[in-house]
Amino acid sequence: MKAIIIHGGVRVYGKLKENPERVDELRKAVKMGYETLIEGGSALDAVEASVRYMEDSPLFNAGYGSSLNILGEVELDASIMDGRSLRAGAVGGVKGVRHAITLARAIMEETPHILLVGEGARKFASIIGMEVNEDLVYEARKQLYEAYMKGVGKKGFPSYLPSPELIRNYLADTVGAVAVDDKGRLAAATSTGGIMMKLPGRVGDSAIIGAGTYANEAGACSGTGVGEAAMKVLGAKQVVDLISEGTHPQKAVEEVLRRLWEKTKTPFGFIAIDREGNIGYAHSGVGLWYAFSKGGVIEAHVERRRVKVEE
Amino acid sequence: MKAIIIHGGVRVYGKLKENPERVDELRKAVKMGYETLIEGGSALDAVEASVRYMEDSPLFNAGYGSSLNILGEVELDASIMDGRSLRAGAVGGVKGVRHAITLARAIMEETPHILLVGEGARKFASIIGMEVNEDLVYEARKQLYEAYMKGVGKKGFPSYLPSPELIRNYLADTVGAVAVDDKGRLAAATSTGGIMMKLPGRVGDSAIIGAGTYANEAGACSGTGVGEAAMKVLGAKQVVDLISEGTHPQKAVEEVLRRLWEKTKTPFGFIAIDREGNIGYAHSGVGLWYAFSKGGVIEAHVERRRVKVEE
Repeated sequence: MKAIIIHGGVRVYGKLKENPERVDELRKAVKMGYETLIEGGSALDAVEASVRYMEDSPLFNAGYGSSLNILGEVELDASIMDGRSLRAGAVGGVKGVRHAITLARAIMEETPHILLVGEGARKFASIIGMEVNEDLVYEARKQLYEAYMKGVGKKGFPSYLPSPELIRNYLADTVGAVAVDDKGRLAAATSTGGIMMKLPGRVGDSAIIGAGTYANEAGACSGTGVGEAAMKVLGAKQVVDLISEGTHPQKAVEEVLRRLWEKTKTPFGFIAIDREGNIGYAHSGVGLWYAFSKGGVIEAHVERRRVKVEE
Repeated sequence: MKAIIIHGGVRVYGKLKENPERVDELRKAVKMGYETLIEGGSALDAVEASVRYMEDSPLFNAGYGSSLNILGEVELDASIMDGRSLRAGAVGGVKGVRHAITLARAIMEETPHILLVGEGARKFASIIGMEVNEDLVYEARKQLYEAYMKGVGKKGFPSYLPSPELIRNYLADTVGAVAVDDKGRLAAATSTGGIMMKLPGRVGDSAIIGAGTYANEAGACSGTGVGEAAMKVLGAKQVVDLISEGTHPQKAVEEVLRRLWEKTKTPFGFIAIDREGNIGYAHSGVGLWYAFSKGGVIEAHVERRRVKVEE
């Protein structure tokens, strides 16, 4: 049974603001993906369509409107995976490309590689006809950046490194999608601008198969949270491994959130789906932006309820 | 009990050539690491020392003497992980830096990030005082490259992509090391120039925590083989997970090689170690270059015996 669930990031610390515009955007994004499934598109087509919508929206940290690195630049990470074939594509630290998820898919489909990064990734994007000089800086992000740099003052780059506090407050809003189509094919996709004030060339979990994105014949998962912590524990693969053993996606994401808390004391958010269209979503932070569409129902919310973890 | 085991890559297909010079180099490299342990260095210091030695040697595909990408350039991947803290550092697609493993360690120790790639990674290397304009092209690799490009003829970059046959014949010789020190601390390190004729910006499993490199409090593992297949199945983490459950490192590497064959039909090689200094090494290809040092004994060989997998 076809279904799709998407996320617009997890708020890991601090206060969650009401943001009805973002919930609206989530609803539209999941509708794009679900309509793709209705029109006969594959799970892969559906997750790409939803993620592309969110990459276009400045309300999410992906594509246009992404976080800025310490030089004020947008550098994007994304990955996509097809569950049946285990084929995967990913891009890390690429500039000027609005739809990093589409570039990741092209890397999967048109090269013998999985991950291309930096200028090489951009060169490949240009060769296959993608626009590689898009201005992805959104005014509100720029103001945030300028305020920071003022605060940082003379400690500017290169001596300045993003502090743990900064990371705590301003990472979030990565986007992702997982879907199953009528043929039982599963796919997962994740896209992000990464953390605000990151060093140039920093690549996070959203570009890493197993960390931010994973899919196999049984399940698919996309994660969000502190990328560096996620890269050490490879949460998305853990979720899919549990689903492969017969665990319901909801139980799987909750169990992995507890495990990751134990190992890293860091909040994360996950969405997951299985072949039957059962969905799961949960977080161990302050709020997870999510939306799903299944059997004619579309829901979009911020989940505030936090998975119980041992503090 | 302190111990170290290193590898100089797996030959995945074709014929294995006798190469006594390379076995000699392996012996010297493992001696470097073991002496570091004797002098009171940590497991992390030891794996870095052994890998640095192999990065300097043109007989391995890491540092000086690395594979060339399709533009004739050396682009390096490396990663390092400290088992006790789960701290990790990695670098992908960096040019001009001889010791990618030392750069990976600096990223771990001096930034809040795990993975820096491309020009950003190089910029960081330069800021911390590393030489970033080293000529890493070894004459024999250049001749190989030129022969290829002649064969490719007018189908040159960008239309030419490395064929599966090319990848089958010329990837290998990635280097890695895993060690335990007298305090029971574990570490793993992997470094490579990646596959010959790769696209610019291609990053393989050697830069990915969980794929090519993993360590925790119980065990450490470094892998080698077809990077793209390794990135889908995260073999190094699977080996360490088995060791964490009490499996002997030798049994762990053999079991994971069988699992990965089933999933990917692709040969790999792994080395692993546990807290007690028990070691494991095995491959599912044609030969694995390895050396270990433990309790005064140093051995260096090519392991030809292949783990039995269901074909």
